[in-house]
Amino acid sequence: MSELQPSLYDDAIGIIQSALRAAQPDEAVKKALKRFHVPEDGRVIVIAVGKAAWQMAETAVKELGGAVSGGIVITKYGHCNGAIPKLRIYEAGHPVPDANSFAAADAAVEAVKGLNSSDRVLFLVSGGGSALFERPLIPASELEDLTNQLLACGADIVEINTLRKRLSAVKGGKFALLCAPARVFSIILSDIIGDPLDMIASGPAYPDKSTCDQAFAVIRKYGLRVTERQKALFAQETPKHLDNIDTEIAGGVSQLCAAAAEKCKELGYEPRILTASLRCTARDAGSFLASIAQYHSDTERPLAFIAGGETVVELKGRGLGGRNQEIALAAAAGIEGLENTAVFSIGSDGTDGPTDAAGGFADSGTAGRLRERDMDLYAYLNDNDAYHALDAVGGLIKTGPTGTNVNDLSVVLIKPLAQS
Amino acid sequence: MSELQPSLYDDAIGIIQSALRAAQPDEAVKKALKRFHVPEDGRVIVIAVGKAAWQMAETAVKELGGAVSGGIVITKYGHCNGAIPKLRIYEAGHPVPDANSFAAADAAVEAVKGLNSSDRVLFLVSGGGSALFERPLIPASELEDLTNQLLACGADIVEINTLRKRLSAVKGGKFALLCAPARVFSIILSDIIGDPLDMIASGPAYPDKSTCDQAFAVIRKYGLRVTERQKALFAQETPKHLDNIDTEIAGGVSQLCAAAAEKCKELGYEPRILTASLRCTARDAGSFLASIAQYHSDTERPLAFIAGGETVVELKGRGLGGRNQEIALAAAAGIEGLENTAVFSIGSDGTDGPTDAAGGFADSGTAGRLRERDMDLYAYLNDNDAYHALDAVGGLIKTGPTGTNVNDLSVVLIKPLAQS
Repeated sequence: MSELQPSLYDDAIGIIQSALRAAQPDEAVKKALKRFHVPEDGRVIVIAVGKAAWQMAETAVKELGGAVSGGIVITKYGHCNGAIPKLRIYEAGHPVPDANSFAAADAAVEAVKGLNSSDRVLFLVSGGGSALFERPLIPASELEDLTNQLLACGADIVEINTLRKRLSAVKGGKFALLCAPARVFSIILSDIIGDPLDMIASGPAYPDKSTCDQAFAVIRKYGLRVTERQKALFAQETPKHLDNIDTEIAGGVSQLCAAAAEKCKELGYEPRILTASLRCTARDAGSFLASIAQYHSDTERPLAFIAGGETVVELKGRGLGGRNQEIALAAAAGIEGLENTAVFSIGSDGTDGPTDAAGGFADSGTAGRLRERDMDLYAYLNDNDAYHALDAVGGLIKTGPTGTNVNDLSVVLIKPLAQS
Repeated sequence: MSELQPSLYDDAIGIIQSALRAAQPDEAVKKALKRFHVPEDGRVIVIAVGKAAWQMAETAVKELGGAVSGGIVITKYGHCNGAIPKLRIYEAGHPVPDANSFAAADAAVEAVKGLNSSDRVLFLVSGGGSALFERPLIPASELEDLTNQLLACGADIVEINTLRKRLSAVKGGKFALLCAPARVFSIILSDIIGDPLDMIASGPAYPDKSTCDQAFAVIRKYGLRVTERQKALFAQETPKHLDNIDTEIAGGVSQLCAAAAEKCKELGYEPRILTASLRCTARDAGSFLASIAQYHSDTERPLAFIAGGETVVELKGRGLGGRNQEIALAAAAGIEGLENTAVFSIGSDGTDGPTDAAGGFADSGTAGRLRERDMDLYAYLNDNDAYHALDAVGGLIKTGPTGTNVNDLSVVLIKPLAQS
């Protein structure tokens, strides 16, 4: 049985490196800032919230140099890597907001007070912003009680946010109102499939789609206990239109796919992005990708099929693995014997499930190498034990922490036989 | 809420009709016969086996006219539609071979006896051929006992065929040997994904890949009880090379996809065949197809993504449905609001699960129309009840029996917004 197909494996690593580089907060901010115009006679206030806030803010200050007048960085405990000129940095609770979150949000609101129309707010948003950037309009204990009720009754995230936006001074577009008349330029590192701008960090600087009617419908649906003060807030509409905002999605799974496609092209593949919103079970995603490889196995030019998104693992067994490893192992069964083919999949944060791998790589020989070791591929799949199967045949991809988190990337590589 | 998007629905029906027409046994035979050369001074013997044998043979005789000297048709009870000039027609047991199967196979073997190298055997194969064309080298009772043992121990179809080919006078390439020195021109209507020519009808006129070693490994693996006579047969190798065969896969899921693609092109879509060997759960296939639609929703030209294959339904509920209806309903959730998009899926035999529908159709409004009726799409999916959900919103596709059976066809249609 052959060893891993070296050219395909090398290509995979190159594609992963390029895609992850493009998805780094600093790269994303640099790229997005090209559309940001520093005002000639106004101030620039930086407000950065989320798990990547420190890195985004540091890049922005470096890029803009003296143009930044001041600002606030709010990130998770342990995520501050040092001082940034002109900015105050807060570390706060995540995923549950704490007193530091509220104090930090107060400072941010204070920082954008009294701006005029020639000033600019540069708003840097990354995952975790919902918890890290919060200023409740009700006592924290009331908010906690309502949140617990919502979680207990099984409300979905849209329903939860419909209520929470109305109980917050900054969510649901209200932060943009606080910045007015200054314009808010948002740079968004999206960790939610489909980039729903009113959902990422609960949309502090984006028009809110939810309505008061919907809020009261949620309360009736689950029979929630709410106070009179809360009722009054639920009756207040969130902004449906904001004329002082510009929004750049700078990092996200679409960008991850685009960067992978660009590298594929550089390596001689014709890239075809299938989707940037894959949402199905990991095992079936692997089978589907393998079936695409089967159909194109007689291609005359190198092809790369790219899918971004976030699959789910259907837990049936007790093994070790992650959704990306499961995609690779499921695909391994389908591409057995297709000499010129590989399928790989990684989590962009470098962590796939509770493992030290970022994902997995499979080629035409993976299934055979397992058989040689008397390892039953399907038994490992059924036990959700992709880690140990791939580990035995050199099919794990390890990157370590990558510094970003924009969902997953899955790629099928196919070379014409003569070329592989 | 809008009604079904008429142009997309009309396109879907047009594509389905074209694809099914191309997959008809008569069309497939006509097309394949273009490569068949009637010998100038030799006989043409027609041997047709399988559920579509009558229709294939009738077409061949019509097309070739007086060139056919004689032959045998072996099909399932009730599948003979009348006499065909020069051919003898047998109806026999399926899926379990019976005395008529053996008598018919005897007649076929007799018909190809004593041919010379200028004669031709036109071998027409369709689904069901394994049972309908059988001449065991052991008593029928012994074959039945072994088959029962194999089924009881959970042997897979490859393992079962590895043994059965050795106990048969016609399977595993041996029928082609019986025809020699005449050439055998096979026209194959494939009902197995991937068109494995040594598996379709157990490959009577195709080199066999399985080995005697593998046969004995199966016997050891399951501890099968076999007679000394059987052992001697398992030790006889099947032909690994045949120099008197030509093989045309004339109907199959690849042809179904190709015909769909051709019609899509005619309707102005750019067709992209993803796969002709889709094998995953129906629900996840629907989600995957919807995610492809999401990524391409801002296309500037009409696109059609085509997937052929055969998915499986993961039975969790007690509703009514089929794999194609489940694909459409699962996709409906993912394409909600994509105004210019439809996903449809059909079984090429016109029967999807235990229903009177061939499959289902979903567009951007399907999910909303269900909600209007207080029908929870996910509840219907979880109950495997796609039939009743789609029925309520005009999303069932009914074709009646189509006269062919070459797996399933799923299509995503996307039009630019301005055009839809």
